[in-house]
Amino acid sequence: MKNKAIGVFDSGIGGLTVYKALKEQLPAEKVIYLGDTARLPYGSKSAETIIKFSDGNALFLLTKNVKIIVVACNSSSSYAVPYLQDKFDIPVLGVIEPGAEAAVKHSKSKIGVIGTSATIKSGAYEKTIVEKKPGVKVISRDCPLFVPLVEEGWIDHKVTKLVVEEYLLPLKEQGIDTLVLGCTHYPVLKGVIAEVMGPGIELVDSAVTTAVKVRSILKSLGWLSGAQDGGEDEFYVTDFPDRFKRVGEIFLNKKIGKVTTATFYTVSLPQA
Amino acid sequence: MKNKAIGVFDSGIGGLTVYKALKEQLPAEKVIYLGDTARLPYGSKSAETIIKFSDGNALFLLTKNVKIIVVACNSSSSYAVPYLQDKFDIPVLGVIEPGAEAAVKHSKSKIGVIGTSATIKSGAYEKTIVEKKPGVKVISRDCPLFVPLVEEGWIDHKVTKLVVEEYLLPLKEQGIDTLVLGCTHYPVLKGVIAEVMGPGIELVDSAVTTAVKVRSILKSLGWLSGAQDGGEDEFYVTDFPDRFKRVGEIFLNKKIGKVTTATFYTVSLPQA
Repeated sequence: MKNKAIGVFDSGIGGLTVYKALKEQLPAEKVIYLGDTARLPYGSKSAETIIKFSDGNALFLLTKNVKIIVVACNSSSSYAVPYLQDKFDIPVLGVIEPGAEAAVKHSKSKIGVIGTSATIKSGAYEKTIVEKKPGVKVISRDCPLFVPLVEEGWIDHKVTKLVVEEYLLPLKEQGIDTLVLGCTHYPVLKGVIAEVMGPGIELVDSAVTTAVKVRSILKSLGWLSGAQDGGEDEFYVTDFPDRFKRVGEIFLNKKIGKVTTATFYTVSLPQA
Repeated sequence: MKNKAIGVFDSGIGGLTVYKALKEQLPAEKVIYLGDTARLPYGSKSAETIIKFSDGNALFLLTKNVKIIVVACNSSSSYAVPYLQDKFDIPVLGVIEPGAEAAVKHSKSKIGVIGTSATIKSGAYEKTIVEKKPGVKVISRDCPLFVPLVEEGWIDHKVTKLVVEEYLLPLKEQGIDTLVLGCTHYPVLKGVIAEVMGPGIELVDSAVTTAVKVRSILKSLGWLSGAQDGGEDEFYVTDFPDRFKRVGEIFLNKKIGKVTTATFYTVSLPQA
């Protein structure tokens, strides 16, 4: 097991935040990353569809012989992790539990959670936070326009500021002291979110705590790599490999080598 | 052939504009509609992926024994129609050709075309318009935030007005006299688009001209239904049947009966 890779999947490119944190925490591990860019976004889809897509992603990573699967996508983590844990024999870790952990560490009383419609509708963060710190109050809000704004590249745009205000001022007014950025796209908007929320509200995301958790799972199983170096990581996407490579390299500030197109939807004869 | 249905597919619910126009033009025909709500949007995906998804949609409609396939989605029409025409024996009609026809009928000199990134990148409207009216000038612009704004329901919102201004004022300044709404979602924003563009710029969409074209194709083949009434239409989606039914009924202002979930992506073992 020691020599096997860590598998990571996301609906797209945002999961590279988790990839980056993994490489910092576990430089000796090889990582295999899959972004389902053909079928994104997941955050506006139903639980059934998200589970189905996640299942396909996990199957793909298993063909690459990984020792653990990290679900970097919050929407997928919200719905599919228990299903995947039940179905597969290797450990499967989502980002909700580590994100909730980071939140309760910072919060004294009231936690805001923002995410896609799927993530917020699932109630997964709320449930996990309350389990970890009974009595804490959680206020959730979906922010469906954040992902399109990030993808349009309108990071410092007046429209983005207006949208952030519309979504988040009600949370500020309710007195939250911590805000969970419950979608891998949202850290890109950290600047404008911090500006709107003002000082005294801690913004947390789950990338680092997830990587720490992966290390602790592998260590407890005795599955940490004994190598000096993980070797070359592998990147797969279901659409737009060139764009992934270009944006990903800017994102990580390093070369990411070859990005391969993975095909796992088949044009098979449909059933109603 | 006369007794077979008309098949329509779209990436989601927007194609109901085409469905509605078909029912007005051809009340004696039965229509089978498929919305690929699990894999939408198409407009931010690659040509290869859009063709693959469209192929699956067409195969699904063929299992329902349709006599013609109408591609209501502009992104899909931009890339997949020649492929589908080549692959299948029945007529396949997209919305680009009818949309271009409507545009050249109105324009004296300069036509603006707006659509998804995929539609604009394809250059399909531009090519078709220039074929129909050589010498006419076409100015194109993708508007990636329009679909998310419509889906968020921000129709009369100040943010939407700002986004429309940012995308469309440059087209107005360049003196277009006609604007093609090259995405089935955009007619929902007709009010604010008309307000920003001001008088003297004609807004055209392709729903009605597409339906007229379908009638003329069926007529020329002798395939028009001889019935008094098409019977009950059938609606299929790949995700969220209840939402499709609810929003679709508001959209059409009539009951649309049962909406069935169609499954045509299979969780098959993936290949890299």
